[in-house]
Amino acid sequence: MPITVFGDSISGNCWKVATILRLTGHAFTWVETDVRRAATRTPEFLALNPNGKVPIVVLEDGQVITESDAIVLHFAEGTPWLPAPGLARTRAMEWLFFEQYNHEPAIAVARFIITYLQQKEAQIERVRQCWQRGAHALDVMERRLAAHDFLTDAGPTVADIALVAYTQAADEGGFDLANWPGVQAWIARVLALPGFTKLPKAA
Amino acid sequence: MPITVFGDSISGNCWKVATILRLTGHAFTWVETDVRRAATRTPEFLALNPNGKVPIVVLEDGQVITESDAIVLHFAEGTPWLPAPGLARTRAMEWLFFEQYNHEPAIAVARFIITYLQQKEAQIERVRQCWQRGAHALDVMERRLAAHDFLTDAGPTVADIALVAYTQAADEGGFDLANWPGVQAWIARVLALPGFTKLPKAA
Repeated sequence: MPITVFGDSISGNCWKVATILRLTGHAFTWVETDVRRAATRTPEFLALNPNGKVPIVVLEDGQVITESDAIVLHFAEGTPWLPAPGLARTRAMEWLFFEQYNHEPAIAVARFIITYLQQKEAQIERVRQCWQRGAHALDVMERRLAAHDFLTDAGPTVADIALVAYTQAADEGGFDLANWPGVQAWIARVLALPGFTKLPKAA
Repeated sequence: MPITVFGDSISGNCWKVATILRLTGHAFTWVETDVRRAATRTPEFLALNPNGKVPIVVLEDGQVITESDAIVLHFAEGTPWLPAPGLARTRAMEWLFFEQYNHEPAIAVARFIITYLQQKEAQIERVRQCWQRGAHALDVMERRLAAHDFLTDAGPTVADIALVAYTQAADEGGFDLANWPGVQAWIARVLALPGFTKLPKAA
């Protein structure tokens, strides 16, 4: 059985998984799992992941792995995408946890409300909170990227994969990336690397 | 220069750092940094971490590392607290990202609003959202812990350290852990391991 990914093509979290698999030379089957059509709530899907979230990966031996950043790390281990243990790896890990705690809940959620749900006006208070938190997250990234090519000193790593996933679509959540020129240049730099494709528009 | 930790003693995220340092035999100096007294907003602190969050660790050579789970991984590498790369390590990583995305923003935030800020009534809508999300996170943990001693099959790991940090104080956020008996038994089991101390009450 080949590696199988259950993912939604317009989800940045799912995009991370397809990207690391391509970058590390793993063949895989993609099973499109449309979140908007509740494909993560079917009995078949919940048997694979009771937590009801994509992406998930079913390995060759049938084991299921979850959590996009854990999946990225799983396939990056032993490749240049994940620096060796020590300070170099820790710098990448700092960014991964920042992404899940500070970045994704603001920047991906703003995009989800505005573009998936089309509820910008109906949920304007929540959108405004996302804009405030998201701007802070982009400021943190800009502080690094104004003067560096990638998020860590180890060249492009899992940190760039995880952070570019939703940053490349921040405009769909109402962020004007012209305000963060270092971030904007970095997105173009990362997406120009071999093996990267742009996340499709959610609209 | 010894390892220095800037942390708030009643923060579960800071508790994780003290715990892994004790468990892995690292001597360290603790600099109490009281979040409620805005000690993370002073110019001295912001020079160390412009993101303005505790915990941070200043290593022997002056390098600063941030993000509680990245710090835990940094010191756990090469010890039994972090399983070897492969599926065993990935299982621990799944829990770490679950903790930062699904668990902490509900269970730690409910405790923060109710016990630190004393604003349960003033922010009752937000508290109710935390209760709903937190109950789901505890359900996910219960599914594992009803039938297993620890979160992964590798014995006690970084996953147990990261998840017990705030789960042990869930009652201060208004959760009745009697509803999750597997989780409740696991808390007692983890805190009884050598090197663990209970997180002080926030009140």
